[in-house]
Amino acid sequence: MAYYVDLNADCGESFGNYTLGQDEAVLSYITSANIACGFHASDPLVMEQTIARCKAAGVRPGAHPGFPDLVGFGRRQMKVSNDELKAMLIYQIGALSAFAAAQGMSLQHVKPHGAMYNMAGKDAGMARAICEGIASVDEELILLGLSGSEFEDAAKQAGIRFAREVFADRAYEEDGSLVARTKEGAMITDEEEAIRRVITMVKEHRVTAITGKEITVVPDSICLHGDSPKAVLFAKRIREAMEAESIITAPIERVIANRGV
Amino acid sequence: MAYYVDLNADCGESFGNYTLGQDEAVLSYITSANIACGFHASDPLVMEQTIARCKAAGVRPGAHPGFPDLVGFGRRQMKVSNDELKAMLIYQIGALSAFAAAQGMSLQHVKPHGAMYNMAGKDAGMARAICEGIASVDEELILLGLSGSEFEDAAKQAGIRFAREVFADRAYEEDGSLVARTKEGAMITDEEEAIRRVITMVKEHRVTAITGKEITVVPDSICLHGDSPKAVLFAKRIREAMEAESIITAPIERVIANRGV
Amino acid sequence: MAYYVDLNADCGESFGNYTLGQDEAVLSYITSANIACGFHASDPLVMEQTIARCKAAGVRPGAHPGFPDLVGFGRRQMKVSNDELKAMLIYQIGALSAFAAAQGMSLQHVKPHGAMYNMAGKDAGMARAICEGIASVDEELILLGLSGSEFEDAAKQAGIRFAREVFADRAYEEDGSLVARTKEGAMITDEEEAIRRVITMVKEHRVTAITGKEITVVPDSICLHGDSPKAVLFAKRIREAMEAESIITAPIERVIANRGV
Amino acid sequence: MAYYVDLNADCGESFGNYTLGQDEAVLSYITSANIACGFHASDPLVMEQTIARCKAAGVRPGAHPGFPDLVGFGRRQMKVSNDELKAMLIYQIGALSAFAAAQGMSLQHVKPHGAMYNMAGKDAGMARAICEGIASVDEELILLGLSGSEFEDAAKQAGIRFAREVFADRAYEEDGSLVARTKEGAMITDEEEAIRRVITMVKEHRVTAITGKEITVVPDSICLHGDSPKAVLFAKRIREAMEAESIITAPIERVIANRGV
Repeated sequence: MAYYVDLNADCGESFGNYTLGQDEAVLSYITSANIACGFHASDPLVMEQTIARCKAAGVRPGAHPGFPDLVGFGRRQMKVSNDELKAMLIYQIGALSAFAAAQGMSLQHVKPHGAMYNMAGKDAGMARAICEGIASVDEELILLGLSGSEFEDAAKQAGIRFAREVFADRAYEEDGSLVARTKEGAMITDEEEAIRRVITMVKEHRVTAITGKEITVVPDSICLHGDSPKAVLFAKRIREAMEAESIITAPIERVIANRGV
Repeated sequence: MAYYVDLNADCGESFGNYTLGQDEAVLSYITSANIACGFHASDPLVMEQTIARCKAAGVRPGAHPGFPDLVGFGRRQMKVSNDELKAMLIYQIGALSAFAAAQGMSLQHVKPHGAMYNMAGKDAGMARAICEGIASVDEELILLGLSGSEFEDAAKQAGIRFAREVFADRAYEEDGSLVARTKEGAMITDEEEAIRRVITMVKEHRVTAITGKEITVVPDSICLHGDSPKAVLFAKRIREAMEAESIITAPIERVIANRGV
Repeated sequence: MAYYVDLNADCGESFGNYTLGQDEAVLSYITSANIACGFHASDPLVMEQTIARCKAAGVRPGAHPGFPDLVGFGRRQMKVSNDELKAMLIYQIGALSAFAAAQGMSLQHVKPHGAMYNMAGKDAGMARAICEGIASVDEELILLGLSGSEFEDAAKQAGIRFAREVFADRAYEEDGSLVARTKEGAMITDEEEAIRRVITMVKEHRVTAITGKEITVVPDSICLHGDSPKAVLFAKRIREAMEAESIITAPIERVIANRGV
Repeated sequence: MAYYVDLNADCGESFGNYTLGQDEAVLSYITSANIACGFHASDPLVMEQTIARCKAAGVRPGAHPGFPDLVGFGRRQMKVSNDELKAMLIYQIGALSAFAAAQGMSLQHVKPHGAMYNMAGKDAGMARAICEGIASVDEELILLGLSGSEFEDAAKQAGIRFAREVFADRAYEEDGSLVARTKEGAMITDEEEAIRRVITMVKEHRVTAITGKEITVVPDSICLHGDSPKAVLFAKRIREAMEAESIITAPIERVIANRGV
């Protein structure tokens, strides 16, 4: 039996005169990129360049839509109607798709950003609006979202594929949700432990929750960070660890196609 | 021999809590709609609704991209690089395309808005950037621009179709350019005269310039306004005059396909 | 004994090419204007013009700061930090103050807008941040907020004056809060009844809650709307009713100075 | 006879999640800071923090208003009306003034940013609109602008003081204007030469133009950059060179007060 997993990271978060992230470095370790679409970060030129970098690196691009909140970087909760939310998704996916098309690529997936990701993961109505937005543009797009969240059921209902995302550096509650950052022990700061946990998740479909209990988790994709030299170094290490463990790192689409093979 | 002409107007220029235009009324008289894409006007919900209204009215939708200047409504000149301009086009066309796709439609054309339209009509580099942006997203999209402007040659070079736009309410210089609004006689205020001029342009391919000389003009589309009850009334009258003269009003695509038939 | 009350309405909510409200009409009936500051509505030119209109009409201007959400008109809840909130207040008050100063006027009051008003009225931390922002710019500024809300105590702690606002067209709960719009009976649709309620509040300091119980309310200012011809007509009627009842309509500052006289 | 000169640099250009510049380092070498006001860069929290840093460093704060173009960082030419321009100035100066007032400071000066600075320096109408905006808010504010530009006369007409700015790293034409960046020799890349030129300008009121001819220049302030470690190092060197030459570095206001002493 072969093990597959995708490594994803946020890319293309620069904006005008402002540069953010270590895109070129991180793109050499990941297999799927979540690309900002101009609402919480990015602009048309940055989107064009980020698609070009994905193409050069052989990384599959996906849309990373967020709330329309540049100054808050999409991290502030906004109470929008589900109709607005669906329309925001369509708009942002469409904009990024055009850059992909212009360079002979197509989008693989959609991963909501920041507060939108966190809110919709726990709100069935928001999750459904997001999935309907995605499906209405292109039913081949895969939703990448938190494993065990509201996204999973919403994707099924909307008829689109769902990829389960896990976090190497975050602790889990017994119900599979992430331990809130405000709680002690929420972050896995020991890199060796983080890598061991990822390997166990991928190969054995389990992880030790913060309570000590083992829970089941079947990851399709691991979320990495790319916003600092240290984060890039961790991406490199996790990529190497996957290879050492004979885990095949591949884009989401291929991981899903090989589930249970 | 049959005569064809398209009637186009700007639609979908509302924004959030702000309503602008008489979209539903004007959509019953036009054959192609130029839909704002969120940079100079509109927002995701308005774009979704405007596509729906086009569908209901049987009007072909097109993108109406503008400069990123909401407060100036895209009417203020901005000096952007041609790379930025091209990327702005791709972004806005992509965003609107997704709303069209979500409702089972596709975009027919692209007409730059406001200051972008005016600047690029006289600037070969800008016109080329716009056409390259359009062609890179979809070579089937038609550029709708001022007859006799820099757009015409740029479209040919980019391999996309060009539709020649004329204005019923504007006077022309001998070289086929519009008389500047600041000049006396720039506006054709007599509606009967405006309609007669349009009919002559469509049937006889000529119009009397402000100097008195007759010049050649071969219109594919007539630009109408939809921002006031009076403008809507004029749209109705021109539509009726076309019928009375056995001129077939049809979307740009069909007008172009029937050129010279 | 003389009765005083202020009549306030939101003004200056136009934006660029978009016109909103019936400012000139409503300004002839009110005594204090809440002027948008460019975050949820308005732009520099509109702010300048609105100050000029207040000056011409003899109406005292106040700042109407909102969340940075033009497309949502400041009506969507945003979860911002209290530090951000305080800084937003300082920014917006400062911007409007400069237009007032440029025309030889000064701001009388500050009334938070939309979602900011509703959220902070129930959130002591937000109310405090708002009051600290106001006080740090100018301790003479009066906070205009919902009677009986968190604003009242926060203003006291920050050392600024508080003006109690009531709504002619809204029903009240027994605790003095507004009945949620989603509840039946939330809106007072009968204009005669609305006017009678206002008179009773001003003269007798009481109003009948939705439960039928009489509660105490001591209004300094009545909130009017100015966004439709019908709203303007109601403003005219309430102004006339005040005069008929010998209630003196005066700007907030004067109402407060005459409390209990 | 004593020599005085001000050292100014742009500060507070970060935005939300994006950090730009080396503010804390550069603030230890300059005497006046030009602080972005939210149109081309910055946000309310950044403005608050930058005023605090100026206060801590003993640096006089000034407003650095720009065009409303975040993605273009205010560097793209925009054709706005003079009324709009004046209103933009009032808005931005007012917003920053409030942060200064909240921390017990007042603004010393205003220096237009980027494309606004460059356009207005050659356009008497724009320069006048800017000066009228400044004067209408506070006649004590000093305009900091290019020596020999349209700003000089416009400030006089508006009744505000003007501080002449020179650039250590730029070559001059015979008429005192800057050599366009596109021309060879436009930049003074040798730091020793740049410092020598500054000293000659301050002490002897002359500089060698790119043609070889000596021209007269009477500088009040030298523009420094703060956007890179190298720029900060140059600021340190120029500050030290001033001290070695017994040139007193002082805020604009004091430099002007000591002119010709």
